[in-house]
Amino acid sequence: MQIGIIGLGRMGANMARRLARGGAQVVAYDRQDAARAALGDEHGVATVAGLAALCAQLDEGERVILMMLPAGKAIDATLDELGALVSAGDTLVDGGNSFYRDSMRRALALSQSGLRYVDAGVSGGIHGLAHGYCLMLGGTPTAVEQFVPYAQLLAPGPQTGWMHCGPSGAGHYAKMIHNGIEYGMMQAYAEGFALLKAKEEFDIDLARLAETWRHGSVVRSWLLDLCAEFLAEDGELEHIAPVVADSGEGRWTASEAIELGVPAPVIALALMARFSSQGKDDYGRRMLAMMRAKFGGHAVSRRK
Amino acid sequence: MQIGIIGLGRMGANMARRLARGGAQVVAYDRQDAARAALGDEHGVATVAGLAALCAQLDEGERVILMMLPAGKAIDATLDELGALVSAGDTLVDGGNSFYRDSMRRALALSQSGLRYVDAGVSGGIHGLAHGYCLMLGGTPTAVEQFVPYAQLLAPGPQTGWMHCGPSGAGHYAKMIHNGIEYGMMQAYAEGFALLKAKEEFDIDLARLAETWRHGSVVRSWLLDLCAEFLAEDGELEHIAPVVADSGEGRWTASEAIELGVPAPVIALALMARFSSQGKDDYGRRMLAMMRAKFGGHAVSRRK
Repeated sequence: MQIGIIGLGRMGANMARRLARGGAQVVAYDRQDAARAALGDEHGVATVAGLAALCAQLDEGERVILMMLPAGKAIDATLDELGALVSAGDTLVDGGNSFYRDSMRRALALSQSGLRYVDAGVSGGIHGLAHGYCLMLGGTPTAVEQFVPYAQLLAPGPQTGWMHCGPSGAGHYAKMIHNGIEYGMMQAYAEGFALLKAKEEFDIDLARLAETWRHGSVVRSWLLDLCAEFLAEDGELEHIAPVVADSGEGRWTASEAIELGVPAPVIALALMARFSSQGKDDYGRRMLAMMRAKFGGHAVSRRK
Repeated sequence: MQIGIIGLGRMGANMARRLARGGAQVVAYDRQDAARAALGDEHGVATVAGLAALCAQLDEGERVILMMLPAGKAIDATLDELGALVSAGDTLVDGGNSFYRDSMRRALALSQSGLRYVDAGVSGGIHGLAHGYCLMLGGTPTAVEQFVPYAQLLAPGPQTGWMHCGPSGAGHYAKMIHNGIEYGMMQAYAEGFALLKAKEEFDIDLARLAETWRHGSVVRSWLLDLCAEFLAEDGELEHIAPVVADSGEGRWTASEAIELGVPAPVIALALMARFSSQGKDDYGRRMLAMMRAKFGGHAVSRRK
């Protein structure tokens, strides 16, 4: 078993490690020297300095190459460069968080050259190395079949935590919705803990409560496990800026709800709450403050 | 170890069983004959036909009596009746979903007679018998101390899944917020699965996807375990009415957010979504349809 990996960031590097520990020969490339160097000495991983070298080390017509790259241009640029290096029968796997329609387009384009394409939604974050990753795969049965042995090494178990979801795009669609659900769940926990924190008269130990809920409660989850862990280290969170980034998947899920005409208010609102945390509500808030001032003479705070 | 239990519904009966299996002598009462009969023959449980008999079988001044009753009048009526049967030093525990301010009021009132009161938020549902319950306890240290040995039998383990959260009311407050979080999480999953279901071109097997997500994904949780289980039995859900009841705790959480002035939009919206499912949006929807008809001449469907 031999697989190429392009992109050795937080996800890619750990996936390379897990594949190598599972017995696969891994040929790994990242355009950053430091990322390659960080992985260079590990058992079962050979790092190479370019895509040509990566393709040369894999058997022509049977190559399986996993891209762990940021969604968007990086994927298209890599596919362009790989075009001249791979051959019919090779399988390219996008394990990043690409928009599912991009994956459908890419799979179709590559199929013209006899290339197989798998869109692989991957969940598990930085803990995947130890626990295994959850993989949602899209593509033709033939394409997915080439990647299954590696999915079985990456997943928590050979028969658990991976799934061929459907045709090209279905893997990234499932991952997109997964992340939309994640936005809603995270917001629900955040609101609940904020309400507990604000109830000063009870002064509930939030770290202990999170730990308590982990055992037997209806809200137990892996996200709660993480909350219990970081609250135990610092329950005040005073040094954490109250700003939450968003990546593509929350936005795509909300847009998809609009396109399908299916309500997803909590997921959309969780996304909007992140925009708000990024300061994108500030102009609207100034508008509100001014309207109150104009109709009711209410005081307006001036910025210092 | 000897404990009285009042109320042998879904929660109370299983808690009686779990306590008895853990080695406690349980004296159990329900005003319904059938509920008593259902539990009557089990090892370690003695059912009695009234509160007087229940109190008579427990040692005066050391009684621990757990009420598993619906929130509201049932608790106050039971406390009124118990008033003449219990004595100073006895401990009364409300394991139901009472409003935390009611629990504060009751604890204060009972303390005038030297009675100890514990508000115990209990999570775990019908699976608690096997897995153990999560218990959030409020009350004075002395009161809670009386109940701890029983909490340790009810919880998943002697040192896990139970917590003395704070003074009277803190247990039911923690449980209220717990349920608010539960509303938000459930809505997030429901929206996500609805978006997957609506994407007909991918025809993703939702039961298999839920099962897949259970292993290694960021959205793994006990609620997801339940989704995987019922979707495997019937993924279409065609025979399930799209109506979702709500109980007090979601409403109280949303009201508390307003009282504290702390935003909890996702929890509040998840609650509103349940109201909507109950048909409580229908008048508003008719208003919208009529406004569109009046300004734009848009067609209005007539009810048959």
